[in-house]
Amino acid sequence: MGEFELLARVWERLPQAGPRVTLGSGDDAAVTLPGGATATTVDAFVDGVHFRREWSSLAQIGHKALAAALSDLAAMGAQPGEAYVCLGVPTDLDEDGCLELLDGMAALAAATGTTLAGGDLTRAPALLLAMTAVGHAPAPEDLVSRAGARPGDVLAVTGELGGAAAGLLLLEGANPHSVPDSGNERRFEALRDRQLEPRPRLAAGRALAEAGATAMIDLSDGLGGDAGHVAARSGVRLAVDAAALPLAAGLAEVAQAAGRDPLELAASSGEDYELLVSLPEERFTAAAAVKEAEGIELTRIGGVQAGSGVEIRLPGGRLLRPAGYDQLG
Amino acid sequence: MGEFELLARVWERLPQAGPRVTLGSGDDAAVTLPGGATATTVDAFVDGVHFRREWSSLAQIGHKALAAALSDLAAMGAQPGEAYVCLGVPTDLDEDGCLELLDGMAALAAATGTTLAGGDLTRAPALLLAMTAVGHAPAPEDLVSRAGARPGDVLAVTGELGGAAAGLLLLEGANPHSVPDSGNERRFEALRDRQLEPRPRLAAGRALAEAGATAMIDLSDGLGGDAGHVAARSGVRLAVDAAALPLAAGLAEVAQAAGRDPLELAASSGEDYELLVSLPEERFTAAAAVKEAEGIELTRIGGVQAGSGVEIRLPGGRLLRPAGYDQLG
Repeated sequence: MGEFELLARVWERLPQAGPRVTLGSGDDAAVTLPGGATATTVDAFVDGVHFRREWSSLAQIGHKALAAALSDLAAMGAQPGEAYVCLGVPTDLDEDGCLELLDGMAALAAATGTTLAGGDLTRAPALLLAMTAVGHAPAPEDLVSRAGARPGDVLAVTGELGGAAAGLLLLEGANPHSVPDSGNERRFEALRDRQLEPRPRLAAGRALAEAGATAMIDLSDGLGGDAGHVAARSGVRLAVDAAALPLAAGLAEVAQAAGRDPLELAASSGEDYELLVSLPEERFTAAAAVKEAEGIELTRIGGVQAGSGVEIRLPGGRLLRPAGYDQLG
Repeated sequence: MGEFELLARVWERLPQAGPRVTLGSGDDAAVTLPGGATATTVDAFVDGVHFRREWSSLAQIGHKALAAALSDLAAMGAQPGEAYVCLGVPTDLDEDGCLELLDGMAALAAATGTTLAGGDLTRAPALLLAMTAVGHAPAPEDLVSRAGARPGDVLAVTGELGGAAAGLLLLEGANPHSVPDSGNERRFEALRDRQLEPRPRLAAGRALAEAGATAMIDLSDGLGGDAGHVAARSGVRLAVDAAALPLAAGLAEVAQAAGRDPLELAASSGEDYELLVSLPEERFTAAAAVKEAEGIELTRIGGVQAGSGVEIRLPGGRLLRPAGYDQLG
C-alpha cells in the first residue's frame, strides 16, 4: 500500500470533523473557521528519545504524542480544536502498525473533542511523530500565558506528581514488591499508565483559566524546570514547599526500591502533564473547584514572590536543587 | 547550550511577529487572532528521503522545508500567516548548524510575510524538519480545493516543469556539457537552484484564486500524480497535451546527457512546486494575468473532461504513463 492509500484508510477511520473544519484531510491544506483566538503548539516525539517501542504499544505511542500536544493547550486554558500529525515510519513498521498507532491517537482525539484534520506520512530512520495541536478561546485574554504570575499569588498544582517517573522506574525494572507493605499491584499498574498513557488536563486548564489563573504551564519537563519558565517569563520568584507536593500513590515504594528520593522525583521528573498554576489568594477557593470539573485535586504548593528563580524547600529547610531538563530531548 | 538557550537564540533572531500573532514563541503555545478562514498544512522533511545534506547547505534545507509547506498554502490561494517547526537534530549537527538552518528558513519567512511563531527542538537519529504552515483568507469560499474541476474547464500550469528533476540529475552527476550546443553554465545553475531552493508560488496562487480557479494543487509529487489527485477529488478526467508542457530551460540538454526523456521528466518528476489549476475557459485570459503578479507564465496544457483519471498524450498520439509517486517518501 502506498502513502495515498494508507492515508485514505486512516482518514476514513476518523470521527466526523469538528464544527470549525470546513475542508478536512485529503487536500493541500485543511480549512477551518477558527472564530476568536487560537493557541497553536508543535511537539516532536522520537523513538529512543521520548518513548521506547519495547515498552509501549503502538496505540499508546499515538495516544501519548497527542496527549503531550494537547497538554500544552490545557496549559493555555484553550478548548482543543484540531490536531495534525507528521508520521515518520521506519522500515520495520508496517501499515497495520501505522493504523494501530493512529487508532490510539484517534481514540484520544475523540475523547477530547479534537479533530484530526490533516497529516503527512514519510519514511524515516526511526518512528517519529510531529504533532500540531490548535486550541480555541473567545479572545486572547481568555488564554493563560506563563508571564502573568505576580508576587503574592498562590502557587498550586493539579493532581499528583512523580507518577510518570515512578512508572518509568517500574518499566526500567524497579521492583517495589521488595519493599515491605508495598501494597497491591494495581497502584503500580496505574503508575505505568501515567508514564505510557498520560491524560491532558484540558477541563482543569479551562476551569483554572476561568477561575482567574495568572500564569499556567504543564509539567512536561518537571516541576523545577517548568516552574523556572514561569519565573523567568513572569519576572518573579517561585517558592515551593516540597512537603506540600502531592505525591503519586505508590511513588514512595517505587522510589525506595530504586534507591531514589521520592520528593526529588516529584520535584524534578517530567511527563506528569499536570498543571502548575499561579493565581491570586482570593481566587484559590474558586479554582479548587476544578475538582468538580475533572475529579482531580488542586493542591497549594507555595507562593509567588518578588525576585527571580525557583526555590524548592525541603522539610528541615534544606533547598532541593532539582536536576533541570535543560538539554535536547 | 541546552534546548532552551538555543531556542532563545533562535527566537531573538526572528523578525517581528505578524499582526495576527498576539503571543509568540516561548510559551506553551502561540496565540493568534486568525480572522476569517485558515488553511493549515503539515509537511515532514527527512534527511536521506527529502534532501541530502551533502548537496544542500543547511540554509537551503531550512528554506526548502518551509517552501514546500508554503507551496501547499499557495495551492489553496491563501495568504501565508504563521509557520511552526519541529526540528530533529542529529548528534553531528551543532548549534551553529541549527542556527544556519533556521536562518535560511527565517529568510524565506521574511520574504513571504510569514511569521515563525513557534517550534520544538529534539534529538533525532537524522536531521528532520516537520513544518506546519497556516494561511489565511477572508472566508472558506476564497480558498481553492482540489475538488472543484468541472468538465469543460481549461487546465493550466504556472512557470516551467522538469527543472527540479533536471537539477537533481545534475547533482547526481549528469554532465550536459557532453551534449553539443548545451549553452552556458548559468542555465544549469538555475536548475540546481530549482531543486535546492524552490520558490512557493504564493502570489500566483492568490491571483489564480481571485481569477476564478475551480481546483488547484501544487506540483510536489509530479504532474501525473498530482493531476490524479485533482481528478479523483473532482470526479473528472484530466487530459494533458504533453507537447504543450512548458519545459524548463536546459532540461532537454540535461535529460539527453542523462539518457532520459525530457517530456517524461516534466510530466512525472516532483518538486517543481508550480501550480496546476483548472478554470472556466472564459476566465483563462484573466488568470493569465498572473504573470503580472509574479512574473511567471500561465500555460494552457489541456482540459477537464467527464470521466476519471489522467491522460497525458504525447505528440503522435501515444499516451505517457508517468511513474507515480505513490509510495512513502
